[in-house]
Amino acid sequence: MAQPYVYTVYRGTFIQALRVSESVPRPRTELVRNRGALWVSSADGRIKGFDWQAHDDQSFRDLMARMNWVDADASTTNGYHETEAKVKIVTACEDRNEFFFPGFIDTHIHAPQFPNVGLFGSSTLLDWLETYTFPVESKFGAQADQPHGDETLPEKTPPSALRIYDQVVSRTLSHGTTCASYFATIHVPATNALAALCHSRGQRAFIGRVCMDNPDFCPSYYKDLSVEDSLSASRSTIDFIHSLDPKGALVKPILTPRFAPTCTRAALEGLGKLAAEYNPPLHIQTHISENTNEICLVKELFPEAGSYAAVYDRYDLLTKRTILAHAVHLTPEERQLVRQRDAKISHCPASNSALGSGIAPVRTFLDEGITVGLGTDVSGGYSPSVLEAVRQACLVSRLLGHTASFKDAQKEHGHEDGHTEKNKQPSLDREKLTVEESLYLATRGGAAVVDMADDLGGFDEGMIWDAQLIELGGMQDLPQNPLLQPTNDTHSLIKSGPVGNVDLFGTETWEEKIHKWVWSGDDRNVKAVWVGGRPVHSRS
Amino acid sequence: MAQPYVYTVYRGTFIQALRVSESVPRPRTELVRNRGALWVSSADGRIKGFDWQAHDDQSFRDLMARMNWVDADASTTNGYHETEAKVKIVTACEDRNEFFFPGFIDTHIHAPQFPNVGLFGSSTLLDWLETYTFPVESKFGAQADQPHGDETLPEKTPPSALRIYDQVVSRTLSHGTTCASYFATIHVPATNALAALCHSRGQRAFIGRVCMDNPDFCPSYYKDLSVEDSLSASRSTIDFIHSLDPKGALVKPILTPRFAPTCTRAALEGLGKLAAEYNPPLHIQTHISENTNEICLVKELFPEAGSYAAVYDRYDLLTKRTILAHAVHLTPEERQLVRQRDAKISHCPASNSALGSGIAPVRTFLDEGITVGLGTDVSGGYSPSVLEAVRQACLVSRLLGHTASFKDAQKEHGHEDGHTEKNKQPSLDREKLTVEESLYLATRGGAAVVDMADDLGGFDEGMIWDAQLIELGGMQDLPQNPLLQPTNDTHSLIKSGPVGNVDLFGTETWEEKIHKWVWSGDDRNVKAVWVGGRPVHSRS
Repeated sequence: MAQPYVYTVYRGTFIQALRVSESVPRPRTELVRNRGALWVSSADGRIKGFDWQAHDDQSFRDLMARMNWVDADASTTNGYHETEAKVKIVTACEDRNEFFFPGFIDTHIHAPQFPNVGLFGSSTLLDWLETYTFPVESKFGAQADQPHGDETLPEKTPPSALRIYDQVVSRTLSHGTTCASYFATIHVPATNALAALCHSRGQRAFIGRVCMDNPDFCPSYYKDLSVEDSLSASRSTIDFIHSLDPKGALVKPILTPRFAPTCTRAALEGLGKLAAEYNPPLHIQTHISENTNEICLVKELFPEAGSYAAVYDRYDLLTKRTILAHAVHLTPEERQLVRQRDAKISHCPASNSALGSGIAPVRTFLDEGITVGLGTDVSGGYSPSVLEAVRQACLVSRLLGHTASFKDAQKEHGHEDGHTEKNKQPSLDREKLTVEESLYLATRGGAAVVDMADDLGGFDEGMIWDAQLIELGGMQDLPQNPLLQPTNDTHSLIKSGPVGNVDLFGTETWEEKIHKWVWSGDDRNVKAVWVGGRPVHSRS
Repeated sequence: MAQPYVYTVYRGTFIQALRVSESVPRPRTELVRNRGALWVSSADGRIKGFDWQAHDDQSFRDLMARMNWVDADASTTNGYHETEAKVKIVTACEDRNEFFFPGFIDTHIHAPQFPNVGLFGSSTLLDWLETYTFPVESKFGAQADQPHGDETLPEKTPPSALRIYDQVVSRTLSHGTTCASYFATIHVPATNALAALCHSRGQRAFIGRVCMDNPDFCPSYYKDLSVEDSLSASRSTIDFIHSLDPKGALVKPILTPRFAPTCTRAALEGLGKLAAEYNPPLHIQTHISENTNEICLVKELFPEAGSYAAVYDRYDLLTKRTILAHAVHLTPEERQLVRQRDAKISHCPASNSALGSGIAPVRTFLDEGITVGLGTDVSGGYSPSVLEAVRQACLVSRLLGHTASFKDAQKEHGHEDGHTEKNKQPSLDREKLTVEESLYLATRGGAAVVDMADDLGGFDEGMIWDAQLIELGGMQDLPQNPLLQPTNDTHSLIKSGPVGNVDLFGTETWEEKIHKWVWSGDDRNVKAVWVGGRPVHSRS
């Protein structure tokens, strides 16, 4: 059905991270703010232009006249000329400190683990998998011990699984996640259901059926039955997703070997070949070097490989379309290999702290030219909010200088004076990620991680309108002097000024308002969300 | 004015941390849940009894009859016998997963820094003070360069300061903080205004005028003018608070030398003597060993003392009523001194991460018998929520094992095998704080830190009713199968089931619900708050 208007014209303040050029491998530390108008085509959901001069009513009217546009909402009672095009106008209110921001990209999230959000006790990776994770994931198949066969229809999914997946999509959209790279489970019907759900709800998604066929590691109640089963089941979900969304406009498959220990060599080899069968090759996602015990295990299981990263590389799974989650403890040689293959890293700070895995050296990745995005890693991570991942990325980077591995790396390079090789800034400051850099990772960085840097993560002309409207709210409305007007009615002191916990006092620069959003904001500040130009969430 | 009812009877689920007995110096890891009724006297706000058998309607009616109580709300239209006492009934709704929990105690918060929440950039302690903190605090006095003189009236406070203080009290109450130990500024009128505000709003508070008279460290625009000025100004606020609340039922003064570098020896000596003039001696709060550069500075400034802790001890400021904020880098000898003096530690994990200070070894404190509570340390800390401090305490404890200082301490004690001296559990797990332990620190721990362990932090008979009613909400109400009912109206999928971000799926134990509250909850889950039996906040 054709939209009743040609463009949606967004008016107000637009804030985004600057795109990093090839010659500047590190993210810029600045955000850029523009005020004016930006228009998105109803036909393809892409940004067709902007006018940063049109920041007041008169200049906006001039723009409308120049473009031969009429307001679709205002024109219903009036006639209009055939040369005119109807546009829908969406305005970010300055008085409420509203602004448009690129949608967040969650480069690593396990949808079926959502019921376990907040449940991890004092576990670490390997016991966490056994105690919390495999049991909850196994419930997404009615007949987990049967071959996958023809049960490719989403309708074969247990209702409880549909309920969980629906809630994941609701929650992530409400936190401003416009694109997510999902791990599902081993089950074809439930994985297909997740794809169908994202498609119908309008969330951009990569959907991965989890491959895990190694009987020596995987629990008997939750594993692929054989190499062939693992590969054919993966093919089934790929076929389903390709039929659901032939152009991959919204939902795409992603090959998902869970991590090296869960997979046999034959399965890894088969998956590498499967990825290469397609043009372009399929996306791939997996885990790497999250936890020191896990690394020891990989060394035991794959003694021939030489390193954890080399295991994946050996089977052609380390590609420019590969997302490696965690990468907390990569060796310099592994980082070099990752960079050479142009594989991407999903940094999941909340999860790495919650499971006590350690702190990934993001500054080192960036210095070395490795592409990094952020992941919530629900439910190793305790929050589906990418904004929480932004906060945690900042926080753990400030603790990195206190870690033994950081100090060891300094010593190895003879930089105990607090300087690193590439840069003469003091190292204790250097490894810190700024708010601006973390927001870059959550948007532009994530877009590059999912190999869509030209399409997502910013407001460049030609990009897809995946965006969120943030509302910080106004100032607290208080009585003149509460001490002179004592009252038992505490309610009267709390007015509707702020939204959520963002407190503004009228003295903040726009950059400071962004910092306050990052440190105090939550889903209450996400007023509306669009994906591909379509509204997919508005705050209730 | 007499209350129209003798007791308030609270019905429903009550959850609290168990009190630690003298013979068990470490916090228990369990929370305890009771269902039934608990009653609080309108006369003094204290818990007069409970009946954990009265958990259904019939047994509750039996209790009412046995006690000769009538429901004050229900009895308005009926006559009642003289032998009957009217009671007000407040019910926590089981279907909404509501429960009563002890109010949070914030053992370290800087009220005037509230406008700077979220603004700290990539600074560390000493440059953060200069760049962010001193400027904002200095604005709380209209005439900062004048002697304090007689300007003791709260009305002399700048309106902007009143506005900020009012918002601090609103926000902390809304997050369930029933008791806070506040640092104010050096200004007597504004400090008195904060005391008056807490008193009128009904928040339990310790109010500290900040002492900082060392001209070599303090900025010229923000310091006490002399030792005498520092002491007399402190006395003024003490006198004001004692006249405001003669019994200290709600608001008490607390001596507040900012930290050693800001104070001359003469001021520290005078403050130590001032504390001892009172019976019981005054409470004291300050900072200690937050940052390694700060520790070096103290060593330079007080070479005679031997250690940072010894500076305070030398001037009788290390007492059982002293709150030491941070204590990230205390030496074993300093910990021993702190324990001997029975001084208390306020652990401020969010702040310590945000300013890159490091990770305080809380498990070591607890093992050694040191009393610990939690502090938000606004605005070094980025959140006024003690629940966020609970989360951060858990998270950083999971990273502690990765720090160089932790590994060094292990080596020193010859425990590279991962065992500590006192306990044979693996050390990498041992230093982790559980959710239950962190909640203990936020309630019972905080109560002990403010020397009110017999009055606050739990629901023991005789304790003061400082409590919060938490509402987790119900399950998400979803369509039977969204895939069979595709809709563009995404709103219809989001119903009013959950409160905030706490997602329940109907399979959780009560302990798991607590974990979900801690990891996903926020002020939206705080439905009502009481201090001293008085309602002081209810969610709007």
